[in-house]
Amino acid sequence: MHDRDAADPLAQYRDLFVRAPDVVAYLDGNSLGRPLAASIERVRDFMEQQWGGRLIRGWDEGWMEQGQLIGDDLGRVVLGAAPGQVTIGDSTTVLLYKLVRAALSAQPGRTEIVIDRDNFPTDRYVLEGIAVETGMTLRWVDTGDVTVDRLPIGPATALVVLSHVAYRSGYLADVAEITAAVHAVGGLVLWDLCHSAGVVPTHLDEWNVDLAVGCTYKYLNGGPGSPAFAYGASRHHSMVQPIQGWLGSATPFEMGQGYEPAPGIRRFLSGTPPVIGMLAMSDMIALIEEVGIDAVREKSVALTSYAIDLVAELDVTLSTPRDPARRGSHVTLDHPLFAGMMPKLWARGVIPDFRRPSGIRLGLSPLSTSFEEVGLGVRAIAELL
Amino acid sequence: MHDRDAADPLAQYRDLFVRAPDVVAYLDGNSLGRPLAASIERVRDFMEQQWGGRLIRGWDEGWMEQGQLIGDDLGRVVLGAAPGQVTIGDSTTVLLYKLVRAALSAQPGRTEIVIDRDNFPTDRYVLEGIAVETGMTLRWVDTGDVTVDRLPIGPATALVVLSHVAYRSGYLADVAEITAAVHAVGGLVLWDLCHSAGVVPTHLDEWNVDLAVGCTYKYLNGGPGSPAFAYGASRHHSMVQPIQGWLGSATPFEMGQGYEPAPGIRRFLSGTPPVIGMLAMSDMIALIEEVGIDAVREKSVALTSYAIDLVAELDVTLSTPRDPARRGSHVTLDHPLFAGMMPKLWARGVIPDFRRPSGIRLGLSPLSTSFEEVGLGVRAIAELL
Repeated sequence: MHDRDAADPLAQYRDLFVRAPDVVAYLDGNSLGRPLAASIERVRDFMEQQWGGRLIRGWDEGWMEQGQLIGDDLGRVVLGAAPGQVTIGDSTTVLLYKLVRAALSAQPGRTEIVIDRDNFPTDRYVLEGIAVETGMTLRWVDTGDVTVDRLPIGPATALVVLSHVAYRSGYLADVAEITAAVHAVGGLVLWDLCHSAGVVPTHLDEWNVDLAVGCTYKYLNGGPGSPAFAYGASRHHSMVQPIQGWLGSATPFEMGQGYEPAPGIRRFLSGTPPVIGMLAMSDMIALIEEVGIDAVREKSVALTSYAIDLVAELDVTLSTPRDPARRGSHVTLDHPLFAGMMPKLWARGVIPDFRRPSGIRLGLSPLSTSFEEVGLGVRAIAELL
Repeated sequence: MHDRDAADPLAQYRDLFVRAPDVVAYLDGNSLGRPLAASIERVRDFMEQQWGGRLIRGWDEGWMEQGQLIGDDLGRVVLGAAPGQVTIGDSTTVLLYKLVRAALSAQPGRTEIVIDRDNFPTDRYVLEGIAVETGMTLRWVDTGDVTVDRLPIGPATALVVLSHVAYRSGYLADVAEITAAVHAVGGLVLWDLCHSAGVVPTHLDEWNVDLAVGCTYKYLNGGPGSPAFAYGASRHHSMVQPIQGWLGSATPFEMGQGYEPAPGIRRFLSGTPPVIGMLAMSDMIALIEEVGIDAVREKSVALTSYAIDLVAELDVTLSTPRDPARRGSHVTLDHPLFAGMMPKLWARGVIPDFRRPSGIRLGLSPLSTSFEEVGLGVRAIAELL
């Protein structure tokens, strides 16, 4: 065993995850987390005992509230959110659309939305569509490494949409400082937590965040295409979102005339909750609670630091901040040869992520990634260069 | 064995479904279909071998196209749609929102949307929200039993949104006739197939339908909250939908600047596909293909006819058309005592559906429901009356 793994107090948890027999170094937990073995049993059991056994009765026995209950767990363990402000459903893209539109409805007279050019494509695309339909102006920041002084905010700012951890560089934004600055000019902030949820401690309530979304298939190990989460601070529960469906209504089973939005976070929902799709993440949330999100972060910093130390000897560009306080849990290297290298790495059982035009991302999921995997991955890249 | 079951050529298929030990008559397949045992194995195998074994490589090995492939199967087996026009994703509500907005974008200058008061709540609620945001006028039809002569259509009609099978009465609309009448005035039609998909043969291409949505957890047995499907006729693939996300873009993994919609049906997608959530329905689609949708419909008519014959002796109101050509696969009875009867029926292991204020729906899923169950269910209702 690698001596860093031998000294790692979290090493034991790796055995809880399903292992892929042909993979020697999985360095893509920032894109798709490994399944916990317990999640496979949970889903099997649900399908047989709950769906098959309880049938339609299950809706009265907990399915209907499941998204809000898992949301509360996620809020307590990962997001720093008091109960009643987080729910699970839809995709990140659909939730982004609903929350951005909701925020704009609460900001009449303000005409600008701020976003950065390096934000994840779906965030940019959603806002481009909303700008066309609402007539809002998009103010673009030319970097994903966003700091307060780069933000074009002012009295026209309705909303600022940023990523907590930048998907390419791994840059970790200062949520509290930026949120306060936007509030100072009367704007609202929506944070995309896709690349931080489950691996970087967040304190959404304490930081006075307005709205947030994130995906659950990266560091929350919900499985490919698992539903997303939405955070809406209690003070914003009077906002109006555009996709008015029965599950966001006050009384779904009354089936009455005229939409009345539900009180609380449920008003941001629309259709029937994806009950099976949200099961796997609950095992990971429970595991993070057992370990503690601060311990997860500590190992994340150790893993990324180790990776940065190792790649210092290679002739590649480090695109991730060296300051651990300013980076998330992936390390991005750039080199012109990387575009052609991926099939060769995969053939060796080394699986990092690739982002065009020339970036390899080493996504290090603390509870399932070993220091040995990091070493093997960097060594394979070095040999292929 | 009930003699009608003994004579039923489809009786053998019931054994393929998971049985709930305490349920003697499950009459709610129109709300949540039973799981096929094969689906439990399929999901377990996917989670272990595909998610756990292939990890991120799975996206290159079929996950990305899975929704369109299952959509093509659904189109061929159930919907009467040529390939490339059906996809799986989101919820029915979200797809309704996107397709209605897309249709309106293609109908500039037209100011009215037609819908019926008895349409499913989510359809009505979505349209109420869209009417507010777009300034369109809703023209309400006062019955769910919609015929051409009751439709307030004309030169202002942009879109007509109707259910193929009405969720309360079970009334089966004449899609071809209504669609032709709406087209004759220059309108478009969006059909909600939630209560017909998988049990009533549809011929969307032949009927010249424009757009359709439907859920997959009723007669398609996809599981609680499984993702919905959307049909968009090829001639409408230049429509613009409002939730522009990376998975609806032409080149998701280029991650470039500026949203370019994908060619074809994929442009109606937005976020990451719910890969696990769409697995179970594929077993049911395969089973319907083996049996043939016309044989499914034949047994459906036999089951609903048998139920109607049995309830003729009760002092209840039959709210479902007696003409089998005008009804779907559920039979609705109304009686003032029904609201208080549900717990007693459940206690006997008899599980129909209830719809306020006074309706019991007997939802008869042909491949998993026996004639004996229908008999037991009606007898229990008779005894409790």
